[in-house]
Amino acid sequence: MIDLNLLTDGGVGWLDASGPSSHLVLSTRIRLARNLSSHVYQGRNSETEREEILQSVERAVRESVLLRRPTRYRLDRLDRIDRQLLHERHLVSKELAGLEAEGRVRSGASVLIQDRIGVMLNEEDHLRIQGLHSGFALDETYAEVDRLDTELGQRLAFAFHPEFGYLTSCPTNVGTGLRASVLIHLPGLVLTKEISKVLQGLAQVGLTHRGLYGEGSEVVGNFFQLSNQTTLGSSERELLDHLGKMVRQVMDYEEQARQVLVRDAPTVIEDKVWRAYGLLRYARSLSFEEAMNLLSGVRLGVGVGLIPDVAMYTLNKLLIYTQPAHLAVAEGISPDDADLPLRRARFVRKVLESEVGRRG
Amino acid sequence: MIDLNLLTDGGVGWLDASGPSSHLVLSTRIRLARNLSSHVYQGRNSETEREEILQSVERAVRESVLLRRPTRYRLDRLDRIDRQLLHERHLVSKELAGLEAEGRVRSGASVLIQDRIGVMLNEEDHLRIQGLHSGFALDETYAEVDRLDTELGQRLAFAFHPEFGYLTSCPTNVGTGLRASVLIHLPGLVLTKEISKVLQGLAQVGLTHRGLYGEGSEVVGNFFQLSNQTTLGSSERELLDHLGKMVRQVMDYEEQARQVLVRDAPTVIEDKVWRAYGLLRYARSLSFEEAMNLLSGVRLGVGVGLIPDVAMYTLNKLLIYTQPAHLAVAEGISPDDADLPLRRARFVRKVLESEVGRRG
Repeated sequence: MIDLNLLTDGGVGWLDASGPSSHLVLSTRIRLARNLSSHVYQGRNSETEREEILQSVERAVRESVLLRRPTRYRLDRLDRIDRQLLHERHLVSKELAGLEAEGRVRSGASVLIQDRIGVMLNEEDHLRIQGLHSGFALDETYAEVDRLDTELGQRLAFAFHPEFGYLTSCPTNVGTGLRASVLIHLPGLVLTKEISKVLQGLAQVGLTHRGLYGEGSEVVGNFFQLSNQTTLGSSERELLDHLGKMVRQVMDYEEQARQVLVRDAPTVIEDKVWRAYGLLRYARSLSFEEAMNLLSGVRLGVGVGLIPDVAMYTLNKLLIYTQPAHLAVAEGISPDDADLPLRRARFVRKVLESEVGRRG
Repeated sequence: MIDLNLLTDGGVGWLDASGPSSHLVLSTRIRLARNLSSHVYQGRNSETEREEILQSVERAVRESVLLRRPTRYRLDRLDRIDRQLLHERHLVSKELAGLEAEGRVRSGASVLIQDRIGVMLNEEDHLRIQGLHSGFALDETYAEVDRLDTELGQRLAFAFHPEFGYLTSCPTNVGTGLRASVLIHLPGLVLTKEISKVLQGLAQVGLTHRGLYGEGSEVVGNFFQLSNQTTLGSSERELLDHLGKMVRQVMDYEEQARQVLVRDAPTVIEDKVWRAYGLLRYARSLSFEEAMNLLSGVRLGVGVGLIPDVAMYTLNKLLIYTQPAHLAVAEGISPDDADLPLRRARFVRKVLESEVGRRG
């Protein structure tokens, strides 16, 4: 069993709701896809070559300032529960963790993490340099990721084409290799049924949306990951500015939707958020999906000032710690245990009760 | 506006959960249909004749021991809200209150009430002598109703046929004129889906079931009124013994169903009852029907010992005071006010919060 407490803030510092606009945006994540020019791409390379990639990167990291003391996890040597834990904590992708349907862990799959930055190794690309921040923080996150990219790029020969830019395993990432995602909570737009219009609009300007767990994951609890679709033909700055502008617009729409709800249907919305709170306080069995949806209701209530006594940080923590692997590890049972929904409900009750005690 | 506080216990002494088996049976009600041989039956008589009936009964009542100091309500002189109030309090029938679809109050419609007994006048029959007790109390209730019947029968000439028995406006009541009803809570049989089998069985032995408000009312909150279907061909004693035996059987079935639920699906049932409690504690808007259903869940939870801190009496009170007319009067608004569901939720929250305060 891995010990995530070795990580600064347990690797969930990004959840502390300290960042800008954190009442709407949980986190900002940026990753850069990079490959070594000396090696063929994933899917065509051998176990030996993937070990060589690891060693090359480790050599570069040893001389790094930003990744001087990383925490290392070799995913291919971890049990499923540990891989799930890292994935639930948003530290590695579903693919790296081998958690996709019929997915397996690729040999050499690893991650190096230090504070808010890290590198996934032997994912779809040789390297995925990544950064994660609390709240809406594209510039801060990119600055850190960019510094790490520069540092590593001085010691590693990245596959780069003067016309196309960085070359990647999948053509959709060629160019900047950059994907920036903003995890945003949009219950107002969902309740006013404006969300599909907004998502369609985003698609038209080259942005895409995903669920809580990235590619292929469903939207639960009204949490959306908004990110750039293309990486080619624009500079990093342009991609980030465009995404930032659009996210700010979505945030405006969401604030407006909430104002409309509170103005036109105050009792409906008050009833909705307090019912969610009541169920979280008293239910004896909760699926993860229901917990997400109820937490979404409470988060909306806190956001519009209807529920005063719950901190966003508490809600963020519940979001992470009620996930199957996190809960199973905390309770010392298997994530498949039939007791899990009961333990989840008990955990949520405890946290919310202590919140009342602390504030009351 | 009438003042129900003039009645002993506000006319809801029967709700105090003091009677036998009151965890399952809310109340026992018995009525005897009687008519004056001197007058034609309702539906064919005139306003003048109905006034004469009133006066005859009033004369008899003045010499009565049991109804010496009755509280009197002339339904035909009351506003709809007051009639609704009396009906919601189970003191008069829907018909007497003129609350049936397209129903009107019959001139001369009245009720005399003293403690647990009373007489409805100018209902479907000239007199409906009635008694209402807390819990499962057929014998006690009948004893009181029978004494009043005897007393009044000494001073009034009831229509009686040596072969058929008491004659009534509707042929289904001919004979004893007796209908005994037991208001029973059967969530266990509903949850185990055995209820329709049980109700079919009751129909086969001449018993019928109705909702909370008697004839034509729907079942809400798993509350059933079980009563005898026929009144002819058996003595009062036989009718009561038969109903009593069958109700005891239904109570056994219900207890068994609850044991099965707690044994086979303890977490499902625990989750269900606490969710009901959580919603009642925190919802901001409640329809009467939803409130009934949630109160039914909490009542089950209290009944099987899962919810310790709520008294049956509190639940019974909520049953009465969350009804439209009761709530509207208490809140000083109309029963049609769109705010009613909000006031209901607030009322329920207050009562349950003070219950926690009182016990905690």
